[in-house]
Amino acid sequence: MNVLVINCGSSSLKFQVIDSVSEKCLAKGLCERIGIEGSMISYTPDGGEKEKKEIPMPDHTKAISLVLEALTNEKTGVIKDLSEIGAVGHRIVHGGEKFANSTLINDEVLEAIKECNDLAPLHNPANLIGINACRELMPNTPMVAVFDTAFHQSIPAKAYMYGLPVSLYEKYKIRRYGFHGTSHSYVSHRCAELMGKNYDDVKMIVCHLGNGASVSAIKGGKCVDTSMGLTPLEGLIMGTRSGDIDPAIIEFLAHKENLSIDEVMTILNKKSGVLGLSNGVSSDFRDIEDGYRAGDKYMTLAMEAFCYRVAKYVGAYVASLNGVDAIAFTAGIGENAPIVRSLVCEYLGYLGVELNEENNNKRGLDIEISKPGCKTKVFVIPTNEELAIARETVSLVK
Amino acid sequence: MNVLVINCGSSSLKFQVIDSVSEKCLAKGLCERIGIEGSMISYTPDGGEKEKKEIPMPDHTKAISLVLEALTNEKTGVIKDLSEIGAVGHRIVHGGEKFANSTLINDEVLEAIKECNDLAPLHNPANLIGINACRELMPNTPMVAVFDTAFHQSIPAKAYMYGLPVSLYEKYKIRRYGFHGTSHSYVSHRCAELMGKNYDDVKMIVCHLGNGASVSAIKGGKCVDTSMGLTPLEGLIMGTRSGDIDPAIIEFLAHKENLSIDEVMTILNKKSGVLGLSNGVSSDFRDIEDGYRAGDKYMTLAMEAFCYRVAKYVGAYVASLNGVDAIAFTAGIGENAPIVRSLVCEYLGYLGVELNEENNNKRGLDIEISKPGCKTKVFVIPTNEELAIARETVSLVK
Repeated sequence: MNVLVINCGSSSLKFQVIDSVSEKCLAKGLCERIGIEGSMISYTPDGGEKEKKEIPMPDHTKAISLVLEALTNEKTGVIKDLSEIGAVGHRIVHGGEKFANSTLINDEVLEAIKECNDLAPLHNPANLIGINACRELMPNTPMVAVFDTAFHQSIPAKAYMYGLPVSLYEKYKIRRYGFHGTSHSYVSHRCAELMGKNYDDVKMIVCHLGNGASVSAIKGGKCVDTSMGLTPLEGLIMGTRSGDIDPAIIEFLAHKENLSIDEVMTILNKKSGVLGLSNGVSSDFRDIEDGYRAGDKYMTLAMEAFCYRVAKYVGAYVASLNGVDAIAFTAGIGENAPIVRSLVCEYLGYLGVELNEENNNKRGLDIEISKPGCKTKVFVIPTNEELAIARETVSLVK
Repeated sequence: MNVLVINCGSSSLKFQVIDSVSEKCLAKGLCERIGIEGSMISYTPDGGEKEKKEIPMPDHTKAISLVLEALTNEKTGVIKDLSEIGAVGHRIVHGGEKFANSTLINDEVLEAIKECNDLAPLHNPANLIGINACRELMPNTPMVAVFDTAFHQSIPAKAYMYGLPVSLYEKYKIRRYGFHGTSHSYVSHRCAELMGKNYDDVKMIVCHLGNGASVSAIKGGKCVDTSMGLTPLEGLIMGTRSGDIDPAIIEFLAHKENLSIDEVMTILNKKSGVLGLSNGVSSDFRDIEDGYRAGDKYMTLAMEAFCYRVAKYVGAYVASLNGVDAIAFTAGIGENAPIVRSLVCEYLGYLGVELNEENNNKRGLDIEISKPGCKTKVFVIPTNEELAIARETVSLVK
C-alpha cells in the first residue's frame, strides 16, 4: 500500500509517499509560506531531480491539492491517480493524555485532538488544518493520527508529575508529556533489533539530538522517562531553546530588562540554546563544531555545555532504569556529529562505554560504535519518523 | 577560642557559641519576629534548659544585644564578658562570583557583599544588617563572612552556564551558583575522613535533604556541580519549592490563571514541592512519610516523586564524575528518614549499592549504611553548618 505521510505546520507542509511493502520513499517534498506571499512547493521523486516552484497557496487545501497534482503528474509523478494512495498518516504534535497510541481519524478523534490545542497552541491547530484539507480532497481515504506524545504516555506519575500543586494537574493537565515519540519508538525498536534482543528485555536510552533535542529512557518495552515536558522547551540545550533553567530566572530577567512573560519566553525559545551560548552566532551545530575545532571561546562553551547536559540526562536515566544495556544516538546532530558522541561518551566510562572511533566516524548507517564486548553498547541509528508514521498507519488501516 | 556564629534573616537571628578547641556548642538560641510585634528570644546553654521570653526587639542591634546579655547572664550565661568571644562568624547567603572562600570582614568586603544583594534580595541585606549590628556592639572583635555559595565556585563553565544568551551572564551574572555550600563542604570532608581517604582522591555525591534540598558532586577536592542554581528554587522537589519544571509552565500558568510573574513565583516557592504534591496537606516530611505508610495517594506520589528526583540527580552526577566512590545523605530528611535513603538507593543497584538496613535505621551518627565491601559506599553524616562556620572563622582569625 502507498501511504501519504503529512507533517503540517501553520505555514508549511512536509510530505512523503511511502510504499509500505518495500518501505521505500517514492517521493517527498515541502510546501512553504502557505497563506503568505511567495508560496513555494518543492518535490523530489525517488531517483529524480528536485523541482521547486513558486505558486500561490492561499490555504492548506490548495497546498494539498498541489501535492496531489505533483504526485500524479504525467512526467514526474509516482502514482497514476489518487486511488493509489491507500491511506494518509498525519503527524500530530500533542495527544495530551487522550492518546497513548496512534488512531484512525474520525469526527470524535478530531474533537479530541482539538481539545489538546491548549497544550500545543502553535502546532495542533495546524495539524488539524492539514487533516481537514486532506479529508476534503480524499474523502474516502482512511487517515491515521500519529502523536508525538503517545510513546511517552507509559511514563509513571513519579516522573511525569512536577513538584507543583496537584490541583494544577487536575485542572489543567500540567504534567510532563514529552515529544519526538515517533523517533524514540522507532530508534529504540531498531536498537533492540540490532542487538538481537527482545524489545521488552532491553534497557535503552535514546538521544534524539537535532535542532530540537530530547532523551528518553526505555525499560520493559515502555518509555519510563523523557527530557521534554509540558512543552518542547524543557530538557537539553537545543538549537535556540534553553532547555532546563532555574525557573526563577524568568522573574529575574523580566524585572531586570522590564520584559513581559511572553517576551522572556521568546528569548528562551528563539534566542537561547547553542545560539545563545555562541553569543548569537549560530544555532547550526556544524558552525558550533567548526568554532569548537578552531578554539573559539563561545563555540567551545556551547559544545561543552551541550554535551555535558546530554551526559547528565543519560546518567540520570541510567538511575531511572537502574542500569542500561544500550545508548542510541539519532537525528541531525546525533547521526552526523561524531565529536558530540565522543564528548558525551567520555563521561560514561563508568558504564563500560568505550567507543570504536573508526565506526564512530562512519555516516548514514545503523551501526554499533562501541568496542566489541562493551558492557553498555552504543549505537548510531538514523531516525525515520515518516517511515514510522507509515508503518503505524498501515497497521491501523489493514 | 569561643566563636559566636550568627545566621541572620530579615526578621530572625540564629546564634551559637562554639568552643573551637573542644568543638562543643556552649549555647545556642534564636531571636524571632525582630522588628515585628511579639518578638521572642529563646536561649539554651549546653546541658541547661531552654528559656523563651517575649521582649521587644525593634531592630537587629537590639536582638544582638539581648543575645550578648543572655550569653553573659550571671546564672545561665556561658561566658563572663564579651572579651571571651574571640571572633564572630556570619553566614552569608550569596557571595556571587566575588567570593570563592570565606573572608575576614572589612569595609571593602561589606561593599562587595552589598553588590551581591541583587542576586539574593531577601537574604543578603538581612545578613548585612546582622554584621552591622555585631560590629556596633563588638567593634574590636574580628568577624568572618562564610558564604553559602563559595564552595560551588569551583564548578566549571559547562556546568554553571545556562543555555541562555551569554550576554545575560555578562550583563547580570545569570549563572548557576548553588547554595548549602557550607554543608556540602563539611559533609564531603567528613565523608572522605570516614573512608580513610585523601579528600582530593574521592568522587563523592552529597545529598543535603532538608526543607531546602540540594545535591552536589565533588571530585579532585572540588565541587564540580550542584542542583540549586541562580536561586535556591532549582533542582530537587523541596518542602514548598517546585525544583525543576518546564520553564514554559510559568507562562502557561500565568495565562490560565491570569497571574503576574511574581504571583506564579510565589506558587513555585511557597505552595509547591511536597506541599503541592500532597495536595496542600503538609510540607513536613514526617507527615509525608506517615501518609506514604498509610497508603495515601497524594502522600505516596509526593514521596515517590521526591525520591525519584534525588535518584536522577545522583545518576546525573555519577556521569559528571564518571563514576562515584561514595554517596552521603545529610540534613533533616537525609539524616532522619531511612525510608528516603532506602527508596533512593533502590535505583542505584547498578553502582553496586546495597544498604545495610540495620545501620540505615540508626539515627544521629556518622555511619556507613551500605553493606561492607560495596563498590559505592553510602553514608549518613549529620551536617553541622555552625561548626563549619566556626572552623572557617578560626582559621581566618588565627
